[in-house]
Amino acid sequence: MSSSTLVRGGLVVTASDETHADVLVEDGRVAALAAAGTPAAAALTADRVIDATGKYVVPGGVDAHTHMEMPFGGTQASDTFETGTRAAAWGGTTTIVDFAIQTPGRSLREGLDAWHAKAEGVCAVDYAFHMIVSDVREETLAEMDLLVAEGVTSFKQFMAYPGVFYSDDGRILRAMQRAAGNGGLIMMHAENGIAIDVLVEQALARGDTDPRHHGEVRKALLEAEATHRAIRLAEVAGAPLYVVHVSAREALDELVRARDRGLPVFGETCPQYLFLTADRLADPGFEGAKYVCSTPLRPQEHQDALWRGLRTDDLQVVSTDHCPFCFAGQKELGRDDFSRIPNGMPGVENRMDLLHQAVVEGRITRRRWIEIACAAPARMFGLYPRKGTLAPGSDADLVVYDPRAEHVVSARTHHMNVDYSPYEGRRLTGRAETVLSRGEPVVTAGRYTGRPGHGVYLPRSTCQYLA
Amino acid sequence: MSSSTLVRGGLVVTASDETHADVLVEDGRVAALAAAGTPAAAALTADRVIDATGKYVVPGGVDAHTHMEMPFGGTQASDTFETGTRAAAWGGTTTIVDFAIQTPGRSLREGLDAWHAKAEGVCAVDYAFHMIVSDVREETLAEMDLLVAEGVTSFKQFMAYPGVFYSDDGRILRAMQRAAGNGGLIMMHAENGIAIDVLVEQALARGDTDPRHHGEVRKALLEAEATHRAIRLAEVAGAPLYVVHVSAREALDELVRARDRGLPVFGETCPQYLFLTADRLADPGFEGAKYVCSTPLRPQEHQDALWRGLRTDDLQVVSTDHCPFCFAGQKELGRDDFSRIPNGMPGVENRMDLLHQAVVEGRITRRRWIEIACAAPARMFGLYPRKGTLAPGSDADLVVYDPRAEHVVSARTHHMNVDYSPYEGRRLTGRAETVLSRGEPVVTAGRYTGRPGHGVYLPRSTCQYLA
Amino acid sequence: MSSSTLVRGGLVVTASDETHADVLVEDGRVAALAAAGTPAAAALTADRVIDATGKYVVPGGVDAHTHMEMPFGGTQASDTFETGTRAAAWGGTTTIVDFAIQTPGRSLREGLDAWHAKAEGVCAVDYAFHMIVSDVREETLAEMDLLVAEGVTSFKQFMAYPGVFYSDDGRILRAMQRAAGNGGLIMMHAENGIAIDVLVEQALARGDTDPRHHGEVRKALLEAEATHRAIRLAEVAGAPLYVVHVSAREALDELVRARDRGLPVFGETCPQYLFLTADRLADPGFEGAKYVCSTPLRPQEHQDALWRGLRTDDLQVVSTDHCPFCFAGQKELGRDDFSRIPNGMPGVENRMDLLHQAVVEGRITRRRWIEIACAAPARMFGLYPRKGTLAPGSDADLVVYDPRAEHVVSARTHHMNVDYSPYEGRRLTGRAETVLSRGEPVVTAGRYTGRPGHGVYLPRSTCQYLA
Amino acid sequence: MSSSTLVRGGLVVTASDETHADVLVEDGRVAALAAAGTPAAAALTADRVIDATGKYVVPGGVDAHTHMEMPFGGTQASDTFETGTRAAAWGGTTTIVDFAIQTPGRSLREGLDAWHAKAEGVCAVDYAFHMIVSDVREETLAEMDLLVAEGVTSFKQFMAYPGVFYSDDGRILRAMQRAAGNGGLIMMHAENGIAIDVLVEQALARGDTDPRHHGEVRKALLEAEATHRAIRLAEVAGAPLYVVHVSAREALDELVRARDRGLPVFGETCPQYLFLTADRLADPGFEGAKYVCSTPLRPQEHQDALWRGLRTDDLQVVSTDHCPFCFAGQKELGRDDFSRIPNGMPGVENRMDLLHQAVVEGRITRRRWIEIACAAPARMFGLYPRKGTLAPGSDADLVVYDPRAEHVVSARTHHMNVDYSPYEGRRLTGRAETVLSRGEPVVTAGRYTGRPGHGVYLPRSTCQYLA
Repeated sequence: MSSSTLVRGGLVVTASDETHADVLVEDGRVAALAAAGTPAAAALTADRVIDATGKYVVPGGVDAHTHMEMPFGGTQASDTFETGTRAAAWGGTTTIVDFAIQTPGRSLREGLDAWHAKAEGVCAVDYAFHMIVSDVREETLAEMDLLVAEGVTSFKQFMAYPGVFYSDDGRILRAMQRAAGNGGLIMMHAENGIAIDVLVEQALARGDTDPRHHGEVRKALLEAEATHRAIRLAEVAGAPLYVVHVSAREALDELVRARDRGLPVFGETCPQYLFLTADRLADPGFEGAKYVCSTPLRPQEHQDALWRGLRTDDLQVVSTDHCPFCFAGQKELGRDDFSRIPNGMPGVENRMDLLHQAVVEGRITRRRWIEIACAAPARMFGLYPRKGTLAPGSDADLVVYDPRAEHVVSARTHHMNVDYSPYEGRRLTGRAETVLSRGEPVVTAGRYTGRPGHGVYLPRSTCQYLA
Repeated sequence: MSSSTLVRGGLVVTASDETHADVLVEDGRVAALAAAGTPAAAALTADRVIDATGKYVVPGGVDAHTHMEMPFGGTQASDTFETGTRAAAWGGTTTIVDFAIQTPGRSLREGLDAWHAKAEGVCAVDYAFHMIVSDVREETLAEMDLLVAEGVTSFKQFMAYPGVFYSDDGRILRAMQRAAGNGGLIMMHAENGIAIDVLVEQALARGDTDPRHHGEVRKALLEAEATHRAIRLAEVAGAPLYVVHVSAREALDELVRARDRGLPVFGETCPQYLFLTADRLADPGFEGAKYVCSTPLRPQEHQDALWRGLRTDDLQVVSTDHCPFCFAGQKELGRDDFSRIPNGMPGVENRMDLLHQAVVEGRITRRRWIEIACAAPARMFGLYPRKGTLAPGSDADLVVYDPRAEHVVSARTHHMNVDYSPYEGRRLTGRAETVLSRGEPVVTAGRYTGRPGHGVYLPRSTCQYLA
Repeated sequence: MSSSTLVRGGLVVTASDETHADVLVEDGRVAALAAAGTPAAAALTADRVIDATGKYVVPGGVDAHTHMEMPFGGTQASDTFETGTRAAAWGGTTTIVDFAIQTPGRSLREGLDAWHAKAEGVCAVDYAFHMIVSDVREETLAEMDLLVAEGVTSFKQFMAYPGVFYSDDGRILRAMQRAAGNGGLIMMHAENGIAIDVLVEQALARGDTDPRHHGEVRKALLEAEATHRAIRLAEVAGAPLYVVHVSAREALDELVRARDRGLPVFGETCPQYLFLTADRLADPGFEGAKYVCSTPLRPQEHQDALWRGLRTDDLQVVSTDHCPFCFAGQKELGRDDFSRIPNGMPGVENRMDLLHQAVVEGRITRRRWIEIACAAPARMFGLYPRKGTLAPGSDADLVVYDPRAEHVVSARTHHMNVDYSPYEGRRLTGRAETVLSRGEPVVTAGRYTGRPGHGVYLPRSTCQYLA
Repeated sequence: MSSSTLVRGGLVVTASDETHADVLVEDGRVAALAAAGTPAAAALTADRVIDATGKYVVPGGVDAHTHMEMPFGGTQASDTFETGTRAAAWGGTTTIVDFAIQTPGRSLREGLDAWHAKAEGVCAVDYAFHMIVSDVREETLAEMDLLVAEGVTSFKQFMAYPGVFYSDDGRILRAMQRAAGNGGLIMMHAENGIAIDVLVEQALARGDTDPRHHGEVRKALLEAEATHRAIRLAEVAGAPLYVVHVSAREALDELVRARDRGLPVFGETCPQYLFLTADRLADPGFEGAKYVCSTPLRPQEHQDALWRGLRTDDLQVVSTDHCPFCFAGQKELGRDDFSRIPNGMPGVENRMDLLHQAVVEGRITRRRWIEIACAAPARMFGLYPRKGTLAPGSDADLVVYDPRAEHVVSARTHHMNVDYSPYEGRRLTGRAETVLSRGEPVVTAGRYTGRPGHGVYLPRSTCQYLA
């Protein structure tokens, strides 16, 4: 990979700048940017030249929330690290941060090793890990320090799913205290699962088994409650907090209140909450099951609030929570009981394009697109400026993006290993044309040119929003 | 100026990135950045090389609020465009945006022409103009469109100073409506001057003539009131709003409320509100007069709130409101009546260093320093990325900043044309060592190498926060 | 009037209690209440007995906001003190507080005398005065003290109607400061009239002359703005504040904020804002003019907020702002220009019944009905417990109210001197059957038995919410 | 008890009125009130006359939160129903609502029967019961309906004390849903006990065993968190909520937010939070243990907020949470471990006087004193107007209160069965002189004239704030 590449003639868009510049890649990294048309630009030479005239040149996407091959409800997410990272590449995403899982009663290390084994040697693009902490014991807390030291610097806890991933408030407080000391960042699934499970039980007892009841029992107020609780616990612990997959306006309001008080509290939302509404859960013929994820899809007014939160930076990151389950054989497990539908949706391939569509429609600026999809997740999880930007010295994870390419999303044409698309039939404008990962072309003018094992594991520094 | 310059070995800090990179300047602009130590960097050559090893390489400061030679209260700000821009250069600021003033009953054009005449041919660094609208008539509104078209894209109005600059709410609403249509940005001095003048009159009638009463009558609640009012009027007009020199916590709270609702409302504060408190107004021997400016200095708790607002981006810009009056002969006009003390303070030379001091003390990050002092003001007032950043194609307004240089602020050594410093005796760490303006060295290793007339007038595009 | 009356068998409802009790009236006052069926009740005797079995026995209504014979826009409110107080009696209201008006350039005294002359000897029920302060001068401020001493303890100012009643913020502040010292209460018409007048002028210039534009130009945001401003000025002055005819949700929000901070800020709304919406302003054939008042009627969502505010006691009082103008000859003055439509609506006769309807519909409790219509206005304006309750020693202003009587509101049957009813055709349940004013029957079993001149002037103590 | 009593010459003060009236008591109830000096008053006769000249005549206090003989931490509250209700009578309180306790695994009925057995035949004044629900099962929910029907209409749950009274959010939600249906009111001990217990364990592990650590680990933020959570759960259930013993400003803020949104959420505070601060927990020689209760005493700024909340009616009730433990032998159980100190404090005898002291000091009005101490608790818990006011037909629970009597609080002179007073040495102005319970004198001119067994059990209707 000692070759060099020159990307000429594009508009380089980062979270902060839009520049007509040529980008020189040497040894997998951005070596230089030169203003278009200058003698300095003219002097650049390389083994290979990519013509980006009329295109954007943007950093590869960073998807900070994926679940490849995740076991859930007796089945397993349908994308492997191999298929999932390949689909990511197709969609212009060159880094994923996936979640290793601690099995209750076992060590973090064991869980992390298991996930390393799944990912090693098969990924098309680079990857890193968060750690799901299912079982907070003294040893677990001690292990957290070790993981931070070796580059797993974020830990997810669940206020939902009692009996599975659920941590009670004492365990959450302990983990937050530890994170306050070791620089780790607690990521929270904020739903009051104890209360929700009561509502689930009552719904099923009433015979309300259809997917749409999934949306009704997982109430916005219970997401807001848990979000507030997590914030208070973090405040007691003196720790920062990152709330994953925010979907409810009332939950966002709690993030706003926290931020107004100057607390280090951050929020992520996902494309499904920005582009889909709860109506889909009522699609006939059990089709609603395709849209079952937690937190659930919400009515339209929540969507409007989330876009506002993205504009005001009360939400910093858009990740996918990519966790696909096929309709056939997987979603169908819950035909008679919505609570048995595996929770999750595909998305890793669609995120960059959906968010670019928001640029096209005037909801966000181009720079904000790159910020929420590339720069902010990289900064949040200690990968910046190696990932998330195109600065001298950054990894040459670079996308030549055609802002005028039109295409229609469909399960027939997507590359994720799942038999449906929640965005089936949606027409989008803008698409990754060529994708470099550390200088290597993984997608070249619309053809896949990558390979399993190109992607490497990324140890991470701690959250860069706290400096 | 066809020469080229290479700045080698520094840490390039912008609002978004910190990169070890060499910066090549050609023809007054940044031609290329190359990652330190790469073949690409090694290949760069130039007529002149500046060694920045161990230093920061940052964009020149953008001070979006200065008043050179401003007539006020029967006297005139003591810095001319010549002395003021020279002092700016010394302090690492390479762009100022000053305020042309409409005389009531006259046209905007006449005022703008007068200010062009003052500045032309004498400035050490580049400059642009906002327009103070003192007198809203139909012709004034029509002229606003013309000014926006020619690059004067922001208009200041005053809710204070009845009989001088004051506009009533009807005139404010009309100007805001016009700005909503032509892309202009209304800048507001938000204090309820009608109410304040009652309190001034009552204070003087009680014999309370000392400078400290200046701080007491210009109440935080009356700044908050006007801020809220300006926001509501802007909301009615559908216009954006920029509130200048925010000093009161309660005023900041109104900005926070506006932003939480997603309104395009922005705020600026100044170093004096971040580093000085109202106590100074009570300095004995009429020394308090040195600290008389409006909005006034506030008690400590306000300062804490402002720092929080800068961290949460509820305040976007730090400008100086540089408007110096000598203690001898000028401030002294108000010896027997605080209301006759000319309102204003020097600062254009100190801003970059004071804000760097906040980095040293851990209040803000390096990148946030550059954002609030360079990038955000440039974006807010349509100068980005020509000014405010170091990207390929940007003007080579570049500062080699020594983050370890210690110095003591003093009127004896500063370069502003004023006989005192509000920061007299304050020890700071960090200082501009070499300053380029469009590639030309105006300060070279601590010596002034600039000249009157190097600075050119900058027409501006409209506010870039509204895209 | 040395006779005695015994009201037997009713349910006595006050703001605090609901009691089956007999009420003994002696010499115009409530002498005793005895629990129904007790020996003590059996022992009561009187010259006259009223059987209230199955009825409510409630305090006479206190309408704290009426404008009889008020000059406005070249005409005059169509109810005189004689016709207006007679209509009040019909509707179960036994006290009105009307507004004397200061003519600019003249003394408060002169205005007050003029209003005394209008009312004296002609009123059917008791009356008191607020004072409209149009012109704040030193002498005016001094007169305020005198008026408080003699029982005119509340002063209204206008942030609307420039050139007529308008006071600027300096005059408001001065009056508030004076009230802070003498115990007076400032009542505020809170609309930003300066800004509204710009919008009026623009609307008319566009040819938007129809009544519905009245509602559009008097924006909710401009009511909210003025409400906030009045609160801040009161806070600076250290004075309490009473905001009249609150109609906008956003204005109510400001009252809520003030109250959450513990400020002595109070709010009134009116039946028209609770029972009518802005749609009516668009009634065809210039019928919308019947609904022109300021603040204007608002869309439905504001109504919902006002009811909530009444339940949470963020609004304390419901008055009528009774200011009737006939459609023929008066409202018609504005056929070609909505800004010339006299602002105002009748209501003094309907208030008690409309609010009882809210009891019937479950919006408020019976006790809250009496609180907002009788007790709170009496307390707010220094008339309690003489008026507003039925306690031993209170004036025997007493209504035997039939909660089951059905009737239909109509201009054909109402007793106000105005040729239309804004509530025409509305079916209501509940009606005053017998009304005593200081023990004298002014309405007896549905017949008018009162007389001009029975009503006496009531000097008032200061606001009883501030003890 | 067929005798009659006439209380002459006092100022009758209720929550709504202050009237110079004579009060006639017949058969244990208020038969009539007559205005002082009227023929009607002169006509009143009775077997016994009490001269109240110069005194207040007020309703007997209603203490809605006591724990007589409550088992806690291996010991038992030191007042029995006999000694506790006698002390209540001494202090002018004529009704208590105590808490029956469900033993986990047993029925509500069993617990209620046990408490009936404790109280029956020994109380000096009337009493009622709330029910503590420790164990929410289907049968428990069904029993709640039965209890409401028989007059136990409020149910307390604990978010603190895991392993003892603690209910998780699912159990809370279920109980709230049931209350939403049957008219019951959920009372909540709102502290996040799960998180607090972590902090307790950590404190003890650090050797921080002193009483002052009790205050430190039971953080205000964790009271606020639980308060918010309880509100959200009640909102989901569609149920009203009453939060007991609010002590933290941040918790009050949550009540304020709820009320601003119009939710039926109520709050109680206690004299200890209004008159004592956290400093006392650090009293030397283990004296701090006397002040150990939960929620804990807080720093001064919280006190200020609570007074504001009482003035704005964001807090409706002041109860005592009377739960005395002797210093010797009981509080001492926690000498080496603050977590073993029995939680609780005496107060039932002091409440009326302490709150009157707030009247003397200008913090609240006389009427508000009676409202928060008598009327509001009676209404909240379905005892009004039988208790809490002096209206015709009310129980003659009546206190002749001498507002000028000075006395000093001391364990040497109080009548509660506990060996210390948290208010030792505090000088108060105002004292109950004569106390009637249903017309019977239990305290007569400063002598105890009551007897065990006079007090009867009071079945209650549902909350009267929800009509």
